Amino acid sequence: MDERPTIAIIGGTGDLGGGLAWRWARAGYPIVIGSRSAEKGAAAAAELSASLPAASVTGTGNAEAARAGDVVVVTVPFAHQTPTLEAIAGECGGKIVVDTTVPLIPPKVARVQLPPAGCAALIAQRLLGEGTRVVSAFHNVGAQHLREDHEVDCDVLVFGDDLEARAEVARLVEAAGMLAWEAGPLANSAAAEALTSVLIGINKRYGIPGAGVRITGTPTRGR
Amino acid sequence: MDERPTIAIIGGTGDLGGGLAWRWARAGYPIVIGSRSAEKGAAAAAELSASLPAASVTGTGNAEAARAGDVVVVTVPFAHQTPTLEAIAGECGGKIVVDTTVPLIPPKVARVQLPPAGCAALIAQRLLGEGTRVVSAFHNVGAQHLREDHEVDCDVLVFGDDLEARAEVARLVEAAGMLAWEAGPLANSAAAEALTSVLIGINKRYGIPGAGVRITGTPTRGR
Repeated sequence: MDERPTIAIIGGTGDLGGGLAWRWARAGYPIVIGSRSAEKGAAAAAELSASLPAASVTGTGNAEAARAGDVVVVTVPFAHQTPTLEAIAGECGGKIVVDTTVPLIPPKVARVQLPPAGCAALIAQRLLGEGTRVVSAFHNVGAQHLREDHEVDCDVLVFGDDLEARAEVARLVEAAGMLAWEAGPLANSAAAEALTSVLIGINKRYGIPGAGVRITGTPTRGR
Repeated sequence: MDERPTIAIIGGTGDLGGGLAWRWARAGYPIVIGSRSAEKGAAAAAELSASLPAASVTGTGNAEAARAGDVVVVTVPFAHQTPTLEAIAGECGGKIVVDTTVPLIPPKVARVQLPPAGCAALIAQRLLGEGTRVVSAFHNVGAQHLREDHEVDCDVLVFGDDLEARAEVARLVEAAGMLAWEAGPLANSAAAEALTSVLIGINKRYGIPGAGVRITGTPTRGR
């Protein structure tokens, strides 16, 4: 893989996808924004290009974006995870797919409601098939922090069964300006996915707009 | 409840129980250490008393300790959770029981393996019955940090369906020198329980002896 793979952001018109697109575009990665509507994808790309004139950003439909990406990042609500992955599965063979899905089930989004499969990341792996290198990440980052021009005060836990793919995604996390922790197999994604509901509850209870998490006890990693 | 309730530590001869006993005894709480063996409980209490002569510490069997406690804190391995709770259930009616159980299943303790019930805290509530006020906490704290004479660099997530009991446990967490977050219903305990396996994996991978977690984004709480 080239040092700067093309990153497709599926659901890239949303807050999380848009924020990641902005950070990676700024870091010099070619970006393809995918949307269910090719027009909306193109419009989001035009807007991002306007704010980062030096960046390479295009926009299109989700499947076409997945086809164009070397790495495919899926940033859609839980309710859209299955249809979205089914729509792009044919374009993802052999690729790294970064699933960011958190199993929030409205209206009780502050209540942990893990799916029977264990976690959303395992649903993604099942839908995409074994030939696709699924990694999960970015569950706990408040999307509003991504568009701010400073370090994000939240670590990113990265899960995957394919160790090479997981390490590659950890590098992409750091390229986006966050500290990445390789945090075990895909099944461990349940921890970060569940934690998001806890953070939403803490936001409400303590009046914090975007609580995050940091791993502590780590002098060797610069904290 | 008195400002300084008597705290029974079930499984109090272990690292987590012993560390919590030391911190609460030092903070002036009367402590009863329970063990499967009344002799071992008494021996652990004698040792703790020797290091904290002003403290009120006794030791006995688990059921007797639970009977003597106003608050009962259960610190046993997952494999012992069910028999231990069955042994003390008759002594816990109406009381706050703090369950600290993490569903680690050796040898893969760094792999998230949540139980079919959802989490260990819900197992505790089922075993103890609705008349007992189950709260879960302390899942992520490395026991080795508790016996150190400084602030613990790990926040404590506190879960419970009984809001008054949860608030009381949050105060006990802070009395032990840790920052507590009321983090939602008992079902949310899955997040903290799963996170412990992630932290164990991070300890191994990054050579950190006792990784912990902090909630970020919280200027109003002094971080």
